[in-house]
Amino acid sequence: MRDLHIIKIGGNIIDDPEELNSFLHQFTEVRGPKILVHGGGKLATSMSAKLGIPVNMIEGRRITDPETLKVVTMVYAGWINKSITAKLNALNCEAIGLSGADVFCLPAHKRENSQVDFGLVGDIEEQKINTSFLASLIEKGLCIVLAPITADANGQLLNTNADTIAAALAKALSPEYSTNLIYCFEKNGVQRELEDERSLISTLDFSNYVRLKDNGNIAGGMIPKLDNAFAAARSGATVKIGHARYIHQLTDQYHNAGTTISI
Amino acid sequence: MRDLHIIKIGGNIIDDPEELNSFLHQFTEVRGPKILVHGGGKLATSMSAKLGIPVNMIEGRRITDPETLKVVTMVYAGWINKSITAKLNALNCEAIGLSGADVFCLPAHKRENSQVDFGLVGDIEEQKINTSFLASLIEKGLCIVLAPITADANGQLLNTNADTIAAALAKALSPEYSTNLIYCFEKNGVQRELEDERSLISTLDFSNYVRLKDNGNIAGGMIPKLDNAFAAARSGATVKIGHARYIHQLTDQYHNAGTTISI
Repeated sequence: MRDLHIIKIGGNIIDDPEELNSFLHQFTEVRGPKILVHGGGKLATSMSAKLGIPVNMIEGRRITDPETLKVVTMVYAGWINKSITAKLNALNCEAIGLSGADVFCLPAHKRENSQVDFGLVGDIEEQKINTSFLASLIEKGLCIVLAPITADANGQLLNTNADTIAAALAKALSPEYSTNLIYCFEKNGVQRELEDERSLISTLDFSNYVRLKDNGNIAGGMIPKLDNAFAAARSGATVKIGHARYIHQLTDQYHNAGTTISI
Repeated sequence: MRDLHIIKIGGNIIDDPEELNSFLHQFTEVRGPKILVHGGGKLATSMSAKLGIPVNMIEGRRITDPETLKVVTMVYAGWINKSITAKLNALNCEAIGLSGADVFCLPAHKRENSQVDFGLVGDIEEQKINTSFLASLIEKGLCIVLAPITADANGQLLNTNADTIAAALAKALSPEYSTNLIYCFEKNGVQRELEDERSLISTLDFSNYVRLKDNGNIAGGMIPKLDNAFAAARSGATVKIGHARYIHQLTDQYHNAGTTISI
């Protein structure tokens, strides 16, 4: 099976033009089929503020009312997605910018049965992911750039977590490719101590994860990220978490950068 | 050769949710391969106003400074493009929302040598349009939904006239398809008298166009639209201009709705 790299970049990389530029240069040098999933960053928050739309967050997650949905669709699927795609094409990495609404490639439904009503937030229907369409683009040699917006069967757009999209893609495409899921962010990986860079965990297994979560050393947004990471690893993906700056090492099986998820 | 319908809808249709909804229903019933090119509408203007970005218009055309480019990319390639694409997919019309920056399908360059500096506005490099990529999507049965944003070879996004995009596509795809270009807007077609609906011109040839332009009966935004229409017709496309409500008749060769361009 061919290798497929599914690389997710977080908001802090996107917010820093120099960091993003340097990341994109390195990204184009990753060999073979690849998908780039991007998050949103602070632009959606600042855009909401300028438009006078109050930002409601619960447990670090944005509540998506109809006005907020418009802002995140504009920022994620419009500005960020097309800016990245145009830059990749200029770097001779042939790229196509999509959302989950395109060709209904990531069917989703509004999150139900949650204790909190997150509003227009989508949960992906993983069994229905249009893998044949995505694989057809990959086989054409295209790099897919995915914005974290999906749609339901009624055409309602939904705000969807980018980490979850990346993991869902790694799972859905694992029968066809040897999938490598890489979460890139502004830290070197998962750390035993939140503030101590030297406490990087090079390999994290599930029992260790549960222990670090129980004692509070892994908290906040890292929990859903790692839940996604373990779910993808269980489906057969190789999963690493590390700094966007080390994308070369993270995508090279002979290097040991970042944190590798072990099941 | 197979027929290909390239249908452009204007801003006034997009601004009216009911009108847009009704148009999209009818659009899905147009048989065979089709491309939908959409303009922007007032949302970009109102979004600019809310964000405190002054709108500069010269001769009915927007001057695109970097902040305005961000707004139009967000509104056109983000909100409008994904809303339309999600709705078409919900209506079982398999659709993919793209901009000219995707797969660099509509290569462009910043407009030069103009008496007015329109800012970040793109002129399409018609000879370089990626027709093989577009045709490959069409041959998969996909409806391409195109936002009027392009990019140059350096990855600079550019605001681009939607009428011009539609005409450029009709020209570029005419060696492979029997292209039908249809400009849909909120009027029944080209009128001899601007305010008199009964003065609809059913067939407009170039000498008539020049005369009506000279005596001021055709003016404003209609002039670049008709220049585009005649350019496409000269390349072999069938070109009609009419009301979005009559898309059935406009796409049916046995009906005589709207204005047909004659060369």
